[in-house]
Amino acid sequence: MASLDSVFGGRRVVVTGGLGFIGSNLAIRLSAADAKVTIVDALIPRHGGNKRNVDGFPVDVVISDIADATMLAPILANAEFVFNLAGQVSHIDSMEDPLTDFDLNARSQLAFLELLRRVTPEARVVYASTRQIYGRPRYLPVDEQHPVAPGDVNGVSKYAAEQLHMLYSSIHSMRTTALRLTNTFGPRQRLRGEHMGFMPVFVARALENRSITVFGDGSQERDCLHVDDVVDSFLLAAQSDAAIGQALNIGGDERFTLADIANLIVEIADAGTVEFRSWPREHERIDIGSYQADSGLAKQMLGWNPKLQLRDGLRSTIDYYREHLGWYL
Amino acid sequence: MASLDSVFGGRRVVVTGGLGFIGSNLAIRLSAADAKVTIVDALIPRHGGNKRNVDGFPVDVVISDIADATMLAPILANAEFVFNLAGQVSHIDSMEDPLTDFDLNARSQLAFLELLRRVTPEARVVYASTRQIYGRPRYLPVDEQHPVAPGDVNGVSKYAAEQLHMLYSSIHSMRTTALRLTNTFGPRQRLRGEHMGFMPVFVARALENRSITVFGDGSQERDCLHVDDVVDSFLLAAQSDAAIGQALNIGGDERFTLADIANLIVEIADAGTVEFRSWPREHERIDIGSYQADSGLAKQMLGWNPKLQLRDGLRSTIDYYREHLGWYL
Repeated sequence: MASLDSVFGGRRVVVTGGLGFIGSNLAIRLSAADAKVTIVDALIPRHGGNKRNVDGFPVDVVISDIADATMLAPILANAEFVFNLAGQVSHIDSMEDPLTDFDLNARSQLAFLELLRRVTPEARVVYASTRQIYGRPRYLPVDEQHPVAPGDVNGVSKYAAEQLHMLYSSIHSMRTTALRLTNTFGPRQRLRGEHMGFMPVFVARALENRSITVFGDGSQERDCLHVDDVVDSFLLAAQSDAAIGQALNIGGDERFTLADIANLIVEIADAGTVEFRSWPREHERIDIGSYQADSGLAKQMLGWNPKLQLRDGLRSTIDYYREHLGWYL
Repeated sequence: MASLDSVFGGRRVVVTGGLGFIGSNLAIRLSAADAKVTIVDALIPRHGGNKRNVDGFPVDVVISDIADATMLAPILANAEFVFNLAGQVSHIDSMEDPLTDFDLNARSQLAFLELLRRVTPEARVVYASTRQIYGRPRYLPVDEQHPVAPGDVNGVSKYAAEQLHMLYSSIHSMRTTALRLTNTFGPRQRLRGEHMGFMPVFVARALENRSITVFGDGSQERDCLHVDDVVDSFLLAAQSDAAIGQALNIGGDERFTLADIANLIVEIADAGTVEFRSWPREHERIDIGSYQADSGLAKQMLGWNPKLQLRDGLRSTIDYYREHLGWYL
């Protein structure tokens, strides 16, 4: 990767959702490269935002919804890079309160794009999309040509926002890229709440020395990525002209069963146990089976490659949470 | 087609957008089959709603937004069929005021689906989607496997609503079908306003004995359908169990250049002229080139077939507007 300092040093960068899991890791990396980082985060309860994530790092923090044009216009007006990670990430919540999910993940994103178009149409914009838009895979690995068939409202909302980012590139010549992220793990993720995905739940259970519940036989596979690798993909996408107007898969090269991941976490944490349980109905109806991305396009276009092995990534992740567990539970 | 009376006679049917172009033609046909028809229409200015469309026909009319749960819950509670045609149809307007388009075509549809799920989860629901979701075709004819790549905000909004209808079928076992409609023409369409699509503009110009403006060389092709054929597709879809959870193309078997259509309208109306003009920028950037649907799936699944030839359809259409021109301009 080109020197981050030379690309981002002294540049004005906005990270939406920057108090959240991936956003805060990205903001910290950017601040280390001497970028002038402003985080925009609404700190909506049950989302992943946490002020402690950026405690002590040289970043500005603005508490605001991304749809609040009055608040954000002056902040965005001179932004050269916009990393757009704000959103509601719970699939379960999106089914229980679909309109809130749609408002936050789709409608607010359209308002935000309109604002960007008005105040900083030249900014380089990278949007955090999700593998969830594919629904239950018809084949593995899933490339970008795979049919889009979201299995929950969250997937519909996120896909609408991704399409809007692509549209504002093709119609309004804005410089947008979307990254369709796989399951991401690592430091600074909210651990509390069944609604946040399996990885934080597994880690929290182990660290509390409780049992990790795996639904079914745990044979569904995932291509988990460490957040440092995902941060790399955002930084590289922002530097790539070829990636403008593109939606790229960002996933891992290997896949692991949920049972293996649970066992590995218990082994590394040296705490907790694994128990298998039949599927609860509200999970089963939106489960997607196994998933692995084909990230070939991102590798070719961005020069990106995931570096962290699952075992190593989990070890440093568990070390981090062991030290800061109270902040995330 | 099975006798409409035997299917819909005495049944409670709701038609959203039922004062509009296709909705009113559908409501009138249903009322002729002795269905108990309630039209729900917000009569939003610039949309196609027009009370005169159903003047003298035995239908109830409720003026309401489809997202107004308080107003609609008692109306929908005992509906057996819901034909969901409410929406903003202008592609140009969707680019000038994207949030309004998104609110009306996507967010309100989600609220409506939630309401249906609560008060009449067993109802048979047919949603009016659009060919616009495909964007500029990569091949012709366009089948349902063609990639979805909306060329404007209207396409993104409509596709989100279509996906939500499909999702509420797969997740909540609701009995929904989506029909992806091609350019439709016929009586009861608003003629005033460049924003409504080319067909009403062409007809209005001829009947006012003015010149029809065709952009470029007029060589883009369309598979226009008469509204009576489109109404058939809704009535058949509502009777088909196989079509539940499906999104089906509804288009014409032939395609015609815009130049040919303009000339045919002038010939039949025996009025007006055709002039060619270079593309205005706001139209060009969202033009999709030529389009023709492959409606094979709908034909096979619904037993649907378009009956009206373009020339015959245009003749009766022009006769209708000549008689009622003041209502539609």
